[in-house]
Amino acid sequence: MNFSSDNATGIAPDIMEALQQANAGRAMAYGADDITTAATATIADLFEREVEVFPVLTGTAANALSLAAAVPPWGVTYCHRNAHIEEDEAGAPEFFTGGGKLALLDGPHGKFTAATLADALATAPFGVEHHAQPAAVSITQASEAGTCYTPDEIAQISAAAHKHELTVHMDGARFANAIAHLGCTPAEATWRAGIDILSFGATKNGAMAAEAVIVFDEARIRDLRFRRKRAGHLVSKMRFVSAQLLAYVRDDCWLRLARHANSCAQKLAQGLASIDGADLIHTVEANEIFIRLPEPVLEGMAADGVIFHRWLPAGPSVVRLVTAFDTEMSDIEGAIASARRHAGA
Amino acid sequence: MNFSSDNATGIAPDIMEALQQANAGRAMAYGADDITTAATATIADLFEREVEVFPVLTGTAANALSLAAAVPPWGVTYCHRNAHIEEDEAGAPEFFTGGGKLALLDGPHGKFTAATLADALATAPFGVEHHAQPAAVSITQASEAGTCYTPDEIAQISAAAHKHELTVHMDGARFANAIAHLGCTPAEATWRAGIDILSFGATKNGAMAAEAVIVFDEARIRDLRFRRKRAGHLVSKMRFVSAQLLAYVRDDCWLRLARHANSCAQKLAQGLASIDGADLIHTVEANEIFIRLPEPVLEGMAADGVIFHRWLPAGPSVVRLVTAFDTEMSDIEGAIASARRHAGA
Amino acid sequence: MNFSSDNATGIAPDIMEALQQANAGRAMAYGADDITTAATATIADLFEREVEVFPVLTGTAANALSLAAAVPPWGVTYCHRNAHIEEDEAGAPEFFTGGGKLALLDGPHGKFTAATLADALATAPFGVEHHAQPAAVSITQASEAGTCYTPDEIAQISAAAHKHELTVHMDGARFANAIAHLGCTPAEATWRAGIDILSFGATKNGAMAAEAVIVFDEARIRDLRFRRKRAGHLVSKMRFVSAQLLAYVRDDCWLRLARHANSCAQKLAQGLASIDGADLIHTVEANEIFIRLPEPVLEGMAADGVIFHRWLPAGPSVVRLVTAFDTEMSDIEGAIASARRHAGA
Amino acid sequence: MNFSSDNATGIAPDIMEALQQANAGRAMAYGADDITTAATATIADLFEREVEVFPVLTGTAANALSLAAAVPPWGVTYCHRNAHIEEDEAGAPEFFTGGGKLALLDGPHGKFTAATLADALATAPFGVEHHAQPAAVSITQASEAGTCYTPDEIAQISAAAHKHELTVHMDGARFANAIAHLGCTPAEATWRAGIDILSFGATKNGAMAAEAVIVFDEARIRDLRFRRKRAGHLVSKMRFVSAQLLAYVRDDCWLRLARHANSCAQKLAQGLASIDGADLIHTVEANEIFIRLPEPVLEGMAADGVIFHRWLPAGPSVVRLVTAFDTEMSDIEGAIASARRHAGA
Repeated sequence: MNFSSDNATGIAPDIMEALQQANAGRAMAYGADDITTAATATIADLFEREVEVFPVLTGTAANALSLAAAVPPWGVTYCHRNAHIEEDEAGAPEFFTGGGKLALLDGPHGKFTAATLADALATAPFGVEHHAQPAAVSITQASEAGTCYTPDEIAQISAAAHKHELTVHMDGARFANAIAHLGCTPAEATWRAGIDILSFGATKNGAMAAEAVIVFDEARIRDLRFRRKRAGHLVSKMRFVSAQLLAYVRDDCWLRLARHANSCAQKLAQGLASIDGADLIHTVEANEIFIRLPEPVLEGMAADGVIFHRWLPAGPSVVRLVTAFDTEMSDIEGAIASARRHAGA
Repeated sequence: MNFSSDNATGIAPDIMEALQQANAGRAMAYGADDITTAATATIADLFEREVEVFPVLTGTAANALSLAAAVPPWGVTYCHRNAHIEEDEAGAPEFFTGGGKLALLDGPHGKFTAATLADALATAPFGVEHHAQPAAVSITQASEAGTCYTPDEIAQISAAAHKHELTVHMDGARFANAIAHLGCTPAEATWRAGIDILSFGATKNGAMAAEAVIVFDEARIRDLRFRRKRAGHLVSKMRFVSAQLLAYVRDDCWLRLARHANSCAQKLAQGLASIDGADLIHTVEANEIFIRLPEPVLEGMAADGVIFHRWLPAGPSVVRLVTAFDTEMSDIEGAIASARRHAGA
Repeated sequence: MNFSSDNATGIAPDIMEALQQANAGRAMAYGADDITTAATATIADLFEREVEVFPVLTGTAANALSLAAAVPPWGVTYCHRNAHIEEDEAGAPEFFTGGGKLALLDGPHGKFTAATLADALATAPFGVEHHAQPAAVSITQASEAGTCYTPDEIAQISAAAHKHELTVHMDGARFANAIAHLGCTPAEATWRAGIDILSFGATKNGAMAAEAVIVFDEARIRDLRFRRKRAGHLVSKMRFVSAQLLAYVRDDCWLRLARHANSCAQKLAQGLASIDGADLIHTVEANEIFIRLPEPVLEGMAADGVIFHRWLPAGPSVVRLVTAFDTEMSDIEGAIASARRHAGA
Repeated sequence: MNFSSDNATGIAPDIMEALQQANAGRAMAYGADDITTAATATIADLFEREVEVFPVLTGTAANALSLAAAVPPWGVTYCHRNAHIEEDEAGAPEFFTGGGKLALLDGPHGKFTAATLADALATAPFGVEHHAQPAAVSITQASEAGTCYTPDEIAQISAAAHKHELTVHMDGARFANAIAHLGCTPAEATWRAGIDILSFGATKNGAMAAEAVIVFDEARIRDLRFRRKRAGHLVSKMRFVSAQLLAYVRDDCWLRLARHANSCAQKLAQGLASIDGADLIHTVEANEIFIRLPEPVLEGMAADGVIFHRWLPAGPSVVRLVTAFDTEMSDIEGAIASARRHAGA
């Protein structure tokens, strides 16, 4: 009953199968292979337009490379106060950009609004050399609170950003879970809503180590291939990264996996929310549950082998549980039963 | 008959098998898993001492992180003029170190000598603030010319470096091929010869994407884990990188694979060297062959489907052919036959 | 009647005189001259202990070099939300540190408290590689609101910082104005209260371009001379920077100049505060006045030639007026008379 | 008899006078003052075209800012092996560019030729992501060997560079000495010969601390003002830097000063070259003399108070002597007399 994180999972069967199939004979290195070509084409189909695709191996790399390609060293990227790029990447954006800054926006449930961004930009010191310059906005989809931005919300944020010539980045480490929840197309949630560059995550949702930086606006985003290489993120045997991505996006595999994770989260959330004293901190939209539970319940669950993270910033007795593409129904039922037992229900 | 590079290869069977076995159930992320623990322990056994092991995914990352942990931003790393860190990493060492410099040493056949290094250091401006400061030496093993440094040569270089408090790094992207050639132990070719930190490569020799930074001198090398994370090289599903490394070093797998590659190189080199007008540019010690062949021979081979790289810096009609862990004897024989045919033999 | 900023001033007579006297014959470059030796010794006397002194030419350089010497590239520096290093240096701290972060602390009147800092540090993720690491605290003295930290307040902040091994920096661009207000010794307001490194400003208070980075804790602060050189801040004709600093600290010149500026600020503040509808935003302690005045008064003053800055973040009709070492009493009187006239008084 | 360096000099009378005159009343900070406007206009006149002028305080800053504005972080700047940017700036170019590289060109007497550059570029890996990318060329004028590039030589180098879209920078720390020697106009030696950006030095030739980055090609050079600010090189009391520059370029002051220095160098060189066993290492064109003298002569001169630098890279008994705008004829005569005496002449 490991709900610690979706990165505690293994590799989805379709993707493991693809890795094995990719291991046939030789292929030119660094992306000059057929699988990489096919992956790019399939991703382009998925997004209903031409795109540049840069496979990399971690979400931190995808985000930091995206921002580095979008802002000058004195650029400011606006993001939510709890964004992964601010809190969980040990300063990777600052490193890759050569000293850029993050400006933190507040907002409930892990999301900021277009109005909040517009307010911040309204008084920003554009063009004045004494000040770091607003240059990008980063939206986390799904958010760090497990909530999702709707295409309308994204479009409004993008409009506020583009009004001042800022580039709009989406950190889609859990993009699949967001799309599964929203029920819209990938295009509607990205470039049609103004996203210029996307970190398209696959690792948390079934890949071994595969993310793709997807560029929608080539005029704003340049030199990514040099940046990727000198950051050590150009993989020589690229076909194996591309094979993961190709299997991931083919035949709706990614959505199927994400729907399962989201569905598990709904069931687990409903079960736990029915406990006396339970308090859901955020609406469960993707595959993360943030809930306050009575301390004896938490301790009992832990003793029963339910693994979760304490979420201290949200207060005492708040925990995070994450479901994933491979979560077993028996684990959901086991965790709920454990909670009920310790709640005295 | 693809002799373009050892990174055109796939995954060795033992390693692919290990990936599949690692894909059982869940495991804590970022290295807090049993496979990573086992890989570290096995590598320590291999090197006959305690070591710190930092798995990463590319050789460029391994090298750049090693140097960044070894030198200050104003540090100079001495290396051979043709070292990978100088020529083939798009400035990764400079990026990771925050602006460090490489000082280039000359020497035939891809190797520099301790005397050359000592001469350079004898007049270096230690401690004077106007000048970048000598801080590290990097040895490529096997070298970019396919030759190997003997333990004695390494020990002499290390002594020259340590005399001035420089840290000694080994770029071991083809470390296995070097050890297979030298017939010494890994310890003898590294820390016993004064190496402080090693980029231990597995990708070119059968892994999918797995390299390990191995730290021998913890007093000189600090903060690698922060540097790895902020460079986006801390893989969440670490067990799959560690599984590659574990299978690679277990039961002499790595040496077995390298011996095959080296043996293929010997056979191919002998066959080609017997062609009229052939001229081996460097002694073949590891798995790379640099040879001058009559232009009609080269054109004929290419037409027959033998893939190699023109090696322009070494002059016209010089090519590089690389063998690997999976090179088939029939490809060796086919390439030699093709060469002979076009030589009119 | 130019109250725009203290950097609109010229050079104080004693300092200009010193520049001329320094211009006698030749002197070894880069600080190997007698004037630099004397300046260092006099500053040491002033601070009642041995110190390292690094003359530089701008406050931004002094601050950014100080922080770069105090934190690793993944280090976090805590400072007030309105600190100069956050708002007015175009990302210099991030540039010099190689990608460090600033964490912003709130607090009224330009100051944060030890309790606020302690709270932030209490939950900081020390030692966890996923997160940037708390590494320094920076106190602005006098603050950006024209207020001053008392030695007791500084000591409490330093204690909270040192408890977690953070280095404590003071941005003393207006250090003289603060000491003139506090009436304590420089030692009491710095190293005796736990300051490890000080940006000791002279430019705003009468120098042409001269600041000194003063190091109190040499164990925490290393390599400043290499950092200064490679940032282009090692001046060849150093004697002329040192001559400014020497004249500045000799015979209480710096305090005499600052007392005049502070005294002018008191008089101007009292005069303006007596206007109907006036509202002093911050207590006037150093040489800056932040005041809300009726819009017609502001417009009238501007028409009369009183120069000040609108201070938009503090709201409409709030302005900043800055006095300086050379402010003329007639300008004070003129500005007050203008305000009264337009207030209909 | 201090011939150690031209940066051991003080301030030329005209420039000191200008500093005093600039110290009248108040002026808006950061360059929004009349003197800065006048300096820019006068420099534009001098160069016979519109230019952007960025006053800074050190030559290292001028060079590093210029290169940072010209190349991406993965850019390569070609320069002479003994260029100041390579040997004497502690890695400032690498720091400011965010990790750029310098590629070293050989050539006698401190100069490289267009052919040498063209050869290097002919095989450069343009556009290939594995390699740092050629991006700029830097010419030192006068060179570190005291020699000068003719306008024709510069034009050929620029043509070779522009053919591959490289930006051409001139390090003109001793630009005045070069122009005084060449007898051409500043325009002829810079933009008319293809120079895109110039570090225009004044400090070594009579200023206190004043250099100007002069931009000729605004399409290639962007964002210099943000780079200058975040490097701490935007001086608040800018009028005092501009006053130096204005006095320097007005009424041929800069050329008058440089002609004196050059003329002194000629006299000193002739005197020393007539010593038995003397060997001029480089033709004396600007204000530097590199000469081999019998060891007893050198020791005797040193004992007599003649100050010079041993120039070890050029071999034993080679020294550098530098004349300057303020060199006294009596010092020249004294040094020659000393040399003759110890030569037994």
